[in-house]
Amino acid sequence: MRETAIGIDIGGTFTKFGLSDVDGNVLMEGSIPTYTHLEIKPFLDALSTAINDGLNQVHESFEILGIGIGAPNGNYYKGTIEHAPNLNWKGIVPFIDMFKAYYDLPMVLTNDANAAAIGEKVFGGAKDLNDFIVVTLGTGLGSGLVTRGKLIYGHDGLAGELGHTNVYPDGRECNCGKRGCLETYASASGIKRTVFKLLATNNDETPLRSYTYESLTAKKITEMALAGDPIALEAYEYTSDILGLKLADAAAVTSPEAIFLFGGLAKAGDILVKPTMKSFNEYLYPGYKGKINIRLSELMDRNAAVLGASALVWSEIVQNGAIQVPQQARAI
Amino acid sequence: MRETAIGIDIGGTFTKFGLSDVDGNVLMEGSIPTYTHLEIKPFLDALSTAINDGLNQVHESFEILGIGIGAPNGNYYKGTIEHAPNLNWKGIVPFIDMFKAYYDLPMVLTNDANAAAIGEKVFGGAKDLNDFIVVTLGTGLGSGLVTRGKLIYGHDGLAGELGHTNVYPDGRECNCGKRGCLETYASASGIKRTVFKLLATNNDETPLRSYTYESLTAKKITEMALAGDPIALEAYEYTSDILGLKLADAAAVTSPEAIFLFGGLAKAGDILVKPTMKSFNEYLYPGYKGKINIRLSELMDRNAAVLGASALVWSEIVQNGAIQVPQQARAI
Repeated sequence: MRETAIGIDIGGTFTKFGLSDVDGNVLMEGSIPTYTHLEIKPFLDALSTAINDGLNQVHESFEILGIGIGAPNGNYYKGTIEHAPNLNWKGIVPFIDMFKAYYDLPMVLTNDANAAAIGEKVFGGAKDLNDFIVVTLGTGLGSGLVTRGKLIYGHDGLAGELGHTNVYPDGRECNCGKRGCLETYASASGIKRTVFKLLATNNDETPLRSYTYESLTAKKITEMALAGDPIALEAYEYTSDILGLKLADAAAVTSPEAIFLFGGLAKAGDILVKPTMKSFNEYLYPGYKGKINIRLSELMDRNAAVLGASALVWSEIVQNGAIQVPQQARAI
Repeated sequence: MRETAIGIDIGGTFTKFGLSDVDGNVLMEGSIPTYTHLEIKPFLDALSTAINDGLNQVHESFEILGIGIGAPNGNYYKGTIEHAPNLNWKGIVPFIDMFKAYYDLPMVLTNDANAAAIGEKVFGGAKDLNDFIVVTLGTGLGSGLVTRGKLIYGHDGLAGELGHTNVYPDGRECNCGKRGCLETYASASGIKRTVFKLLATNNDETPLRSYTYESLTAKKITEMALAGDPIALEAYEYTSDILGLKLADAAAVTSPEAIFLFGGLAKAGDILVKPTMKSFNEYLYPGYKGKINIRLSELMDRNAAVLGASALVWSEIVQNGAIQVPQQARAI
């Protein structure tokens, strides 16, 4: 009987789920909208119904060892989702306590970027690393930091908020209430803000002038940059310069062996990675130079969110936090 | 027979040593100059001679469980001192390998700020904490970061360089070769630079105008600030504002329960701590607000460097890295 784990990735728009085994094979996957559920209870009803439907369609016998959940502002110690700005459920949601009414299984919850970091360790490019950082460049900027082979959770379970380190104290307004946070520059929304800033300061001709702020997407900016558009390229350079600077600061704290970039913006590839690495090395403590690599996540083209969430089960429940890579997974 | 550990703190000017027990009682202590020894071998000869003389004068029976060494740029994994800018011995010094010729005892070496962090855990204010940061404000700025009860060493044993995070990329020249590092602002040398900047920009009358750059010390600036001197006070405010900002960034990585300030500048007490806490809370990710305390080290008035180095033996050798607080120490 195949040993499996359920992975759930809760995003602002959609919640994805899947059943996978220790080798990362996905036996079943699906998704439901998140934002349509204004209350948590109907959301859990819909989620469990969709998961159960999916499980009924798996045509082999399996055992479920646990459920891993990645969620914005997920608190590992408490199993709660706390004040997530992009979810409808305000305040502190006791997610695991509530979800236990649906499944009598071990459950573990952490923030989505931490789940991505564990996914990178179990299924991706960090299999042989004990000290690394994963940065997710989505609507915001999330981060999961691993040291001595374990995630840094901090005293309250909420560590790893590189997106809210300070770039310009009087800079762009952030959803968190501060100004000038890293994620207002280095994220899908950040690069859009940068494009609009450049449209104001530069005179380059670019099709980007025909977009409204509402209609422009980071995906479009990436396409334009890859096609050689000067404003889109400069936006990537500006983003990379700031990202490299703040990653150099983070590296001065944990001295990682590698930093993995993940998420929408990372799809720009070299246009993001090369200038970020250049800036990073410029601002890095000389004692670390040449030792730390910035590269793309190896889960980019896979269902990383669900894999990362299910990896939580292998690492945090089965392996008790050691994030040891299962023998089979190493052989992939 | 009393169980003891030898602690050695290697500084640019003096090397201090001592023999202490698990309760932090110091049975013997002493020091030799560091800077007069241009080569490492004569230094080790002099150090071991001084230690042996000290041990011979202890009038009770004791057992030595190990030797802990705190050193600038100390590499925990290799037992080496690597490219320390303020020591005469250039390149990579295989300290433990060489010192084993003098003592057949377990040895552990790490950087001086890491030793201070372990000292805070074993003998100071962090006895009940598993997630905290110790910042040493001496000639430079050192830091030791503890998460899940263990020091963050990073993949190369050299993690914890908060002093070289970036404040102003085009700012003050740093000994590390970069510009604008935190320690060029928040340290004994940094506050002196700030005083000279303020003497240039402000017209306040102050006895500080009678000092040369060479003759002015951080100790003097602290005395003047405590006496109400406007330039000295503004220098502390400027220092605290930058320190608070960068500590907020560090807190976004590790979410500590407390940050302990230690070293010469910390002797200013409230003049440093209060504005640092104010700035820290202004720049802190709102999700952490009210949870993290900045306070003075509880080892301020004790021989902290030697205690910290000897604490390495209790935590890293006797307890195998867990930094568990010995029962006796808890009872202090």
